Amino acid sequence: MADRVPTPGRIRPAPEIPRDSRRGFLKRAVAGGAALAAGRVAAQDDANLPPNVPEWTRTLGAPVLASPYGVPSKHEAAARRRESPGLTRTPHSSVAFTPLQSLFGIITPSGLHFERHHAGMPEVDPHQHRLIVHGMVREPRIYTMDDILRFPSVSRVHFIECGANTGMEWANVAVPTVQYSHGMIGCSEWTGVLLSTLLAEAGVDPKAKFVLAEGADGAALTRTVSLAMALDDVMVCYGQNGEMLRPEQGYPLRLLVPGVQGVSSVKWLRRLKLGDTPWNTREESLHYVDLMPGGKHRQYTWIQEAKSVITSPSGGQVILDRGYHEVTGLAWSGRGKVKRVDVSTDGGRNWRTAKLQEPIHTKALTRFRIDWSWDGGPALLQSRVVDETGYVQPTIRQLRAVRGTRSIYHNNAIHTWRVDATGEVGNVQIL
Amino acid sequence: MADRVPTPGRIRPAPEIPRDSRRGFLKRAVAGGAALAAGRVAAQDDANLPPNVPEWTRTLGAPVLASPYGVPSKHEAAARRRESPGLTRTPHSSVAFTPLQSLFGIITPSGLHFERHHAGMPEVDPHQHRLIVHGMVREPRIYTMDDILRFPSVSRVHFIECGANTGMEWANVAVPTVQYSHGMIGCSEWTGVLLSTLLAEAGVDPKAKFVLAEGADGAALTRTVSLAMALDDVMVCYGQNGEMLRPEQGYPLRLLVPGVQGVSSVKWLRRLKLGDTPWNTREESLHYVDLMPGGKHRQYTWIQEAKSVITSPSGGQVILDRGYHEVTGLAWSGRGKVKRVDVSTDGGRNWRTAKLQEPIHTKALTRFRIDWSWDGGPALLQSRVVDETGYVQPTIRQLRAVRGTRSIYHNNAIHTWRVDATGEVGNVQIL
Repeated sequence: MADRVPTPGRIRPAPEIPRDSRRGFLKRAVAGGAALAAGRVAAQDDANLPPNVPEWTRTLGAPVLASPYGVPSKHEAAARRRESPGLTRTPHSSVAFTPLQSLFGIITPSGLHFERHHAGMPEVDPHQHRLIVHGMVREPRIYTMDDILRFPSVSRVHFIECGANTGMEWANVAVPTVQYSHGMIGCSEWTGVLLSTLLAEAGVDPKAKFVLAEGADGAALTRTVSLAMALDDVMVCYGQNGEMLRPEQGYPLRLLVPGVQGVSSVKWLRRLKLGDTPWNTREESLHYVDLMPGGKHRQYTWIQEAKSVITSPSGGQVILDRGYHEVTGLAWSGRGKVKRVDVSTDGGRNWRTAKLQEPIHTKALTRFRIDWSWDGGPALLQSRVVDETGYVQPTIRQLRAVRGTRSIYHNNAIHTWRVDATGEVGNVQIL
Repeated sequence: MADRVPTPGRIRPAPEIPRDSRRGFLKRAVAGGAALAAGRVAAQDDANLPPNVPEWTRTLGAPVLASPYGVPSKHEAAARRRESPGLTRTPHSSVAFTPLQSLFGIITPSGLHFERHHAGMPEVDPHQHRLIVHGMVREPRIYTMDDILRFPSVSRVHFIECGANTGMEWANVAVPTVQYSHGMIGCSEWTGVLLSTLLAEAGVDPKAKFVLAEGADGAALTRTVSLAMALDDVMVCYGQNGEMLRPEQGYPLRLLVPGVQGVSSVKWLRRLKLGDTPWNTREESLHYVDLMPGGKHRQYTWIQEAKSVITSPSGGQVILDRGYHEVTGLAWSGRGKVKRVDVSTDGGRNWRTAKLQEPIHTKALTRFRIDWSWDGGPALLQSRVVDETGYVQPTIRQLRAVRGTRSIYHNNAIHTWRVDATGEVGNVQIL
């Protein structure tokens, strides 16, 4: 597996900022292969071009439309989705994780948004695709994509997190990087029609209490959504980050159930059926349930509770220099807005409040940042989120006291990164 | 040129929503190639799968990581950047336009963000790249990318609009689509270091009043930014929409001057020089100046004034059915937040206030939406933005009264789309 551990996209090898060390500055300039030295800059200060003009300033670059649909630089090949070797039996019922260690801000690039399929990713023809609304409705409907695109639309920023995110850590498996520990999450600007708009069109029977959503994939994946939730903020989406959904995100149509585990946001959505009881489908009874200490399964655990994780520094990265570093990460809550994030560098004994990126969206990733000066000694980095309901992210000890150790899903414990005196960052569980 | 006119990505062929017409519904189901009919849905209501399961539900799909870095569906090939034939002499000093007609929300996908180069797109090695800060500073600096990544960071949503956007319309040229009329704009979540942070590090001479920014491209493109602006909200960016900048957006480092014409947001940024007078470089004296009625040039016109445009329905699209349609578009202001957008369907005689997508970011695209029922007759669609300073988007007549007709840059006039009785939408100028 060693060769599959990714090179983090954003190690910060972090030569010192030349705040008070001229020597450090020059050393870096030479070590980094730069022909520039501070003295020469000063001497040729008035020249139109500074000395040692790089080769790409001396030549003509590529024309426009070198890529009519643009792609990242070849130097950013480390920022890729990755499969966790051995995690699933087939790549058709598997997951590819988002490289959180390489990302900035709150928007997940669509090309790096985690993907989770139950029977592979279907190739759906949007001209043939239909959405059926039936069951306990006044009048069943069949919509084409053109119909759906014609309805009043909304765009909202929300996260989608798989219920199994951080699942491997229930059993004391300290996975190497934040990509594998927390990378089953993404956050996008979603565009579509409110489900309430479609249901108003069909006319919901007053006795209906649940909506069954079914995907057009080979698994015909089905999930039950409560009608209360459906009428609140659930969306039928065709847009993601400004353009049409990507194929692995349900092109051309998916459900989005904000704040709820990802499996409920059914992709390649083809059917919505109204009824008066939950359906107890395969994905609701065999999977996505919580095995509790007494041996019972807890079912229909909808909400992704408040959670946070530091993405830099994080597992697999190396801190090369003492001194200033920005500690940054992501926080979210399935119950609303993030209210506060505290950060500890000593394993939870002392906490400082981080700065949150504004504006804070409801049920969305929220970027936090805090200054840190590394003294070169061992450190234990943790983050702890409080959401607008007052809920505080629990320790793994608190979580296990209620949930035991045999769960897979819904692990939202405080996460710890261990920094060694060598600067190496690894995953450690403080029990 | 006809064959270069794009197929709009999101024509809304718009068969009627079956609100009150059962016949319309059935007709659509058949006409659209669907084997489903409403009666059959009702009859097999209780089956686990509805009738006529599509082929992609009967087969296994593609595995995860079919694309480690994902790409759009093959069915979305119409949503591409495009060059306007004949607009420039070489594709190395040219522009590729954003397909605004295909986009949702406010985030522009990085792969579709307009590109404008002056000597082509350089291929910059981030390990070799340096940022020099010199001139009237206490201590000149040379930064590696690792240095820059180590500074305290911010992420903010801002638009970048080329000063020449909508420039062709000064001279009564009604370009065919919104991609060509307004597509030199994009809006992203940008991440980087505030320029004020870097300047504090270098120590600015109290007599300095301007910053010269220079790119590492073959044009060594240079622009002057006032120090007041530099210390306000200017950023040195390495991130765009969650990942590293795309090559055509200045990888690995660019300036971002929010609200100011795009040329000032110097790409492939390699040098910042502090001084006490503007530099009057080539791109400041020969280009990006406004030719006024008296024959004088207006120089250093920084701000992109408030502007808006309807993106759907828009030029090249065809409205196939009468009845309900959502009219939607984008509004922005280089001076702050969008306060209000009004929409007219009769060429400016009557106006209704549109709904704005929340949250509204400062100096960012703001999506507006409004209901419209097309009666099948000719219509003239217009949008008019008011920003938080109270500035009202002008008519082309008002703009020409001040600016004449010989300008290229800074055309922020109200735009008109003509809807014919056939449903065809075209560009028309109301003078």
